[in-house]
Amino acid sequence: MLPFSNLIQIDRESSEVVYRQIYRQFIQLIKDGVLQAGTKLPSTRELAKSLKVNRMTLMLALDELESQDWVESKARKGIFISSSLPMNRAVALGESEREKSKTTGFQIPEQIYFRQHQPQPYLRKLDEGLPDVRLAPLKELGQNYKQILGSASHQKLLSYGSALGDDLLREELVKFLNDSRGLHTSYEQLAIVRGSQMALRMLSEMLIRTGDKIAVGESNYIGADATFLRAGADLVRIPVDQDGVVVEKLADICQKEKIRGIYLTPHHHHPTTVTLSAERRIQLLSIAEQYGLFILEDDYDYDFHYSRSPYLPLASIDQQGHVIYIGSFTKMLAPNFRVGFISAPSDLVKLIEQERILSDRQGDFVLERSIAHLLRDGVIHQHLRKVLKVYQNRRDTMSELLNDKLSSVVEFEIPKGGMAIWGEFDQEIDLAKVSDILLKKHALLIPDFKQYNTFNLLNSQGIRFGFASQKEEEMNEIIGIMSNHFEV
Amino acid sequence: MLPFSNLIQIDRESSEVVYRQIYRQFIQLIKDGVLQAGTKLPSTRELAKSLKVNRMTLMLALDELESQDWVESKARKGIFISSSLPMNRAVALGESEREKSKTTGFQIPEQIYFRQHQPQPYLRKLDEGLPDVRLAPLKELGQNYKQILGSASHQKLLSYGSALGDDLLREELVKFLNDSRGLHTSYEQLAIVRGSQMALRMLSEMLIRTGDKIAVGESNYIGADATFLRAGADLVRIPVDQDGVVVEKLADICQKEKIRGIYLTPHHHHPTTVTLSAERRIQLLSIAEQYGLFILEDDYDYDFHYSRSPYLPLASIDQQGHVIYIGSFTKMLAPNFRVGFISAPSDLVKLIEQERILSDRQGDFVLERSIAHLLRDGVIHQHLRKVLKVYQNRRDTMSELLNDKLSSVVEFEIPKGGMAIWGEFDQEIDLAKVSDILLKKHALLIPDFKQYNTFNLLNSQGIRFGFASQKEEEMNEIIGIMSNHFEV
Repeated sequence: MLPFSNLIQIDRESSEVVYRQIYRQFIQLIKDGVLQAGTKLPSTRELAKSLKVNRMTLMLALDELESQDWVESKARKGIFISSSLPMNRAVALGESEREKSKTTGFQIPEQIYFRQHQPQPYLRKLDEGLPDVRLAPLKELGQNYKQILGSASHQKLLSYGSALGDDLLREELVKFLNDSRGLHTSYEQLAIVRGSQMALRMLSEMLIRTGDKIAVGESNYIGADATFLRAGADLVRIPVDQDGVVVEKLADICQKEKIRGIYLTPHHHHPTTVTLSAERRIQLLSIAEQYGLFILEDDYDYDFHYSRSPYLPLASIDQQGHVIYIGSFTKMLAPNFRVGFISAPSDLVKLIEQERILSDRQGDFVLERSIAHLLRDGVIHQHLRKVLKVYQNRRDTMSELLNDKLSSVVEFEIPKGGMAIWGEFDQEIDLAKVSDILLKKHALLIPDFKQYNTFNLLNSQGIRFGFASQKEEEMNEIIGIMSNHFEV
Repeated sequence: MLPFSNLIQIDRESSEVVYRQIYRQFIQLIKDGVLQAGTKLPSTRELAKSLKVNRMTLMLALDELESQDWVESKARKGIFISSSLPMNRAVALGESEREKSKTTGFQIPEQIYFRQHQPQPYLRKLDEGLPDVRLAPLKELGQNYKQILGSASHQKLLSYGSALGDDLLREELVKFLNDSRGLHTSYEQLAIVRGSQMALRMLSEMLIRTGDKIAVGESNYIGADATFLRAGADLVRIPVDQDGVVVEKLADICQKEKIRGIYLTPHHHHPTTVTLSAERRIQLLSIAEQYGLFILEDDYDYDFHYSRSPYLPLASIDQQGHVIYIGSFTKMLAPNFRVGFISAPSDLVKLIEQERILSDRQGDFVLERSIAHLLRDGVIHQHLRKVLKVYQNRRDTMSELLNDKLSSVVEFEIPKGGMAIWGEFDQEIDLAKVSDILLKKHALLIPDFKQYNTFNLLNSQGIRFGFASQKEEEMNEIIGIMSNHFEV
């Protein structure tokens, strides 16, 4: 008998279970040629004794080896090292191979990614305009989710279903969107998606081909820029002023070159929060009709307006099927609940269904049904009424703070709605340096201001001072730290 | 009792199944105000009699109405028109607006979609191998979800976070995958995604450029085919025999042309359920190394093996970073819970993070954390032990049924694992016709068998007889209907 007690070392302290240690070392012995094809093993009783392990443990290891064809047992003859061995296999994972596990053995094509700001766990943050998840109707959502999971009549929600989303949510959303923002959408024109980002991505993959020109604001939401670039678009930059994207410039451009479509956030331009004027809205629709453009209207914060009724979305006055309208519950509830929607002509929605099947097959119907219930029961409406008041107060608090503490360096206007104030810093201030210094105090995160100036096209530099997620004392603290820096 | 036989007209010639006709007309009656909120319906027996339909058909319609909240059933009281009606639903759009809403005013580029079978609500279904959601640990999942939502310490899960998934789930999965299938993966090598389909799509977008050649089985999982085609791939078909994909053929092809990678389901080839032999596994890895291929290993049903320990995945013996390993909880829990994973070299995982940010930003961290808890607490393991026994019995039951009732037309082998039996029909049988006839009996859905013979490359035609989701009486019914057909 081979000296198995030397060949196979059991480490009782190891987190690896014993049978697996035996299994692994057996393979090694075979690979190293110590155990050759056809070699007969000792009886399990002898072997177990020699290794000082329970016979069951050994059997488990041998079983595993047999199932992987490393050994074969022959009736009434014993266990043999397999004669059809997968021999030319390499040596165990040593340090150098571990290194290899970090890199692919095949070539990865060049990827067009435009790195975006990644959230990190800082104690205090200035975000770019997020909801306060502490106010969200989490209890109601959790109750619905649990109840639906437990209900036999909802069991069909647990299997495969429509890639356009839960039926009831689509119906409830049709009502909600038509009531709250004057859309004329219908069940067939509505697709549920996992938030605006998924809508942007799916539509980009469907509507943009390499080299297509997409018009966007000179400053623009970085997530949209990144997504269009990923789809192979050439971005055509349009200036943005106090009345939003300068639509006249788009008309000029369209006369000279083929533009596929335009992306914008007319309710509050991201990042500068300005609203697209009524005149420009009409003009934009007429340009779209003339040149066959799509208008991708990202209405990320429609539900948050404080001073007066907002303009209705472009989608509500589009009669020729040019506007694709997207929005989400991210701002209404919390970023984690990635439920959003696309309202578009139904021929496009039919294709969206196919695209979604390939993207991730379908949404979470239990979550979607839960949100449908919150809509049906008026919980969402009630929640919106509540947070509107809170956020309006917070906007005012943030404005006062900026006036009190940062007015020497920051210029801003009070936005009529939304969740952030756009503050512009003087050109001479090196925001990169400010950001670094503050980060080193590891108590503050400035949203990466550079992202609003992607191609250094802007003559100004700004930060979105998100106010909705912050209680007064939290804002005080953050703005205090910033103002201390500027006093130095 | 209202004159339901006049109110609801069944058209037996219609292509619309009867229960759906009932369902649709019920909604119309409610919308028209004929049936008012709170109205009690007659008993199902009476109503079925009055409509001259099978009681089961009526139940199906009522079930659907209930799940859409049009009606509510109260224990021991009966079924009522729902008191919280979505009433002001539909002041219908005029015909002209409807027409406009159907078409875009801009040009949609040609889309490469490969239409897949869409599930529809039939009373009895033969699926292609789905889990029985009735057995899933829904209660535990619901409890966890609700509890996490209600817990202040989990609040950070509600905002933006890592696009690679919840930390705890990644940690738990590393343990689970390394323990259960001998992987050597780590936190940095693991990305959480929304199921295998999302993994396929993201990897396709990243690794495939138009015209790239991707090797797949002659028969292959249609979701993969469709996804690669969408990404612009040319599919190169490799024969499949009793030992899985014929790897020797791949070697021949690689000598002649540049192949980017291969997709396969080595544990059980989809659809034919055969297992890739040990010898071919070694050979495949060596080809990948020689020609710089990626191997996309879709291990969709590793956890379901009945006869003996399965081969460990290719990923467990890959030392040079060629294998990208994907799997999901779809089969372990239910299709609705779209949580899956990619284990790959960490340089690729870093790019996956970027790709995910653009796809849909991130997963549902509350769901992911809930599943992490189920893993941590052993609930998943316990669940797997339970269903393994149930599914093994169901496999045996299905085999017996096929032997008893369909042996004259179907050939099959009992699979060692998985959730479906691959049954091959004689060439002379026109499965399209069979499928149509059975569908008209509106009680049976054959999974679209054509999907397994995408390019008419196969010399045989088969159906996956999914057994895992079916109780014995349910299988009896379905196979009974099929065998009746063949006796005629």
